[in-house]
Amino acid sequence: MMNNINFNLQHYLKEKRKLVNQYLKLIFQPYDQTRELIMAMDHSLMAGGKRLRPILSMAAAQACGKDFLLALPACCAMEIIHTYSLIHDDLPAMDDDDLRRGLPTCHKKFSEATAILAGDALLTHAFNVLSNPQPFFEIYPDNDTRLQLISIFSAAAGIQGMVEGQMLDIQSYQPGQNNRLAHLKKIHALKTGKLITASVESGAVSVGADLKTIVKLKCYADQIGLAFQVADDILNIEGDPEIMGKSAGSDEQNDKMTFPAIIGLDESKKYAKMLVENAIDEISNFDETAAPLRAIANYIINRNH
Amino acid sequence: MMNNINFNLQHYLKEKRKLVNQYLKLIFQPYDQTRELIMAMDHSLMAGGKRLRPILSMAAAQACGKDFLLALPACCAMEIIHTYSLIHDDLPAMDDDDLRRGLPTCHKKFSEATAILAGDALLTHAFNVLSNPQPFFEIYPDNDTRLQLISIFSAAAGIQGMVEGQMLDIQSYQPGQNNRLAHLKKIHALKTGKLITASVESGAVSVGADLKTIVKLKCYADQIGLAFQVADDILNIEGDPEIMGKSAGSDEQNDKMTFPAIIGLDESKKYAKMLVENAIDEISNFDETAAPLRAIANYIINRNH
Repeated sequence: MMNNINFNLQHYLKEKRKLVNQYLKLIFQPYDQTRELIMAMDHSLMAGGKRLRPILSMAAAQACGKDFLLALPACCAMEIIHTYSLIHDDLPAMDDDDLRRGLPTCHKKFSEATAILAGDALLTHAFNVLSNPQPFFEIYPDNDTRLQLISIFSAAAGIQGMVEGQMLDIQSYQPGQNNRLAHLKKIHALKTGKLITASVESGAVSVGADLKTIVKLKCYADQIGLAFQVADDILNIEGDPEIMGKSAGSDEQNDKMTFPAIIGLDESKKYAKMLVENAIDEISNFDETAAPLRAIANYIINRNH
Repeated sequence: MMNNINFNLQHYLKEKRKLVNQYLKLIFQPYDQTRELIMAMDHSLMAGGKRLRPILSMAAAQACGKDFLLALPACCAMEIIHTYSLIHDDLPAMDDDDLRRGLPTCHKKFSEATAILAGDALLTHAFNVLSNPQPFFEIYPDNDTRLQLISIFSAAAGIQGMVEGQMLDIQSYQPGQNNRLAHLKKIHALKTGKLITASVESGAVSVGADLKTIVKLKCYADQIGLAFQVADDILNIEGDPEIMGKSAGSDEQNDKMTFPAIIGLDESKKYAKMLVENAIDEISNFDETAAPLRAIANYIINRNH
């Protein structure tokens, strides 16, 4: 692992989070803020997310030695898609969650119909952000690049990606060809992994990185995406409910298939550590511009929420 | 109105419907047809729709004197978006419909969660079709044109379009600045009008029509979009339940705001006729290549389902 002793991750995360929030606000500013649809979208979009996906996208752009501001349209589109997926996942027909980050979920605060439509509108608007240049972005990827970003995002979020992952997650486990561990990995690779990989990839694509660099970054992303999920399962057992905004141990109560439940808590910790080491290894030939990516990889398994 | 005595609309509609169905099948053929998500998407997509939107798109391309095959990607994307909107509109939290075109709605046939996800996947995939060239389309609009199509569709289907129209439709009417008729027109202009206009526009844009032509076609589309809705309200009173696949008089039973309820049945018929005449008037300087558009305008108020 390369030395990044001078890199202050907390400062980096805070600064980038602020930037993303600022641009997300600009995107929805032109719309009448008293409309219920806009209020519902805003409620979920501004609920205090970590903005991990857009930050990964900016860090990837930076690791390619380019201006990360060029990745901002992709960053915002990605966070908008992520927010839509949370709203729909929380619905009564899905995970039926009342709280998200300590706040009422969209359908609890508004109504089920409004939450469905707010999710639909967010998903649709993500593609509008990418297809339609917004005047407040100082720099903007060219048409061909933006079309490529739409292709990446629509593939990662769709039938062979996030939506199928959620589908598998709500279906009960069918003992078959796959053992439970392989099945769990597949769910996560689709449900969260594809979008995390698309975040990293979109940052590199936004700044016109070459194919070899993109492939390396995608390998990095595949590993941290899975590590993120393993760490989530561990946090659900060991985390502080106050900090997480939800109760600890809920997975166990819901008899949910998790890494600790299948391979044990200690093995899960080792596995998450190994994934992060592999991820950092994938980008070993990048110079110090990749310091944020390396630090984020470590942060993913050492965070407290 | 121009003479189109030699134009056989029924033959035209049948032929074009067949073409759209064929390409929609090709789009989803690569995916495992035994997956529940794919089955749910297919159930709604292949439920025997009129394919009015894609046919309008092709007819608009033709009216520009160009090869309508170039409009096929836009046609398919449009029908996929339309299908997603029907699935979500039918959900228990929305209109709570059990039947659609005589078949069980998606959430009745599968489950509510599956229907939400099938809608999400369809919406996402529409943008994948436009961003990612599919090998089976013989001709394909260039990158700039496809980006423009994504911009048109994401605007028409989103926060200032279809989703907002559905939002207004499920909210109860608030007596305020708008009278009931103006409010009803606004709902329809957003909920169905925007997507019908986008269909016509996308056909013209796909073949590279000039701005003046596009503006005329959009004016045509605005009128027939509203006429379509007025005709729907009339059919709900006078239509044959067998042919429509739903019971007549349901609007009245549900105390729904409709044109006949506000301005009366006779006035509604006159209004629909006037809208169609206006629509045909907008394209009066087009030659006989616009015969399909003229015939479709008349068909919209003379159909029986």
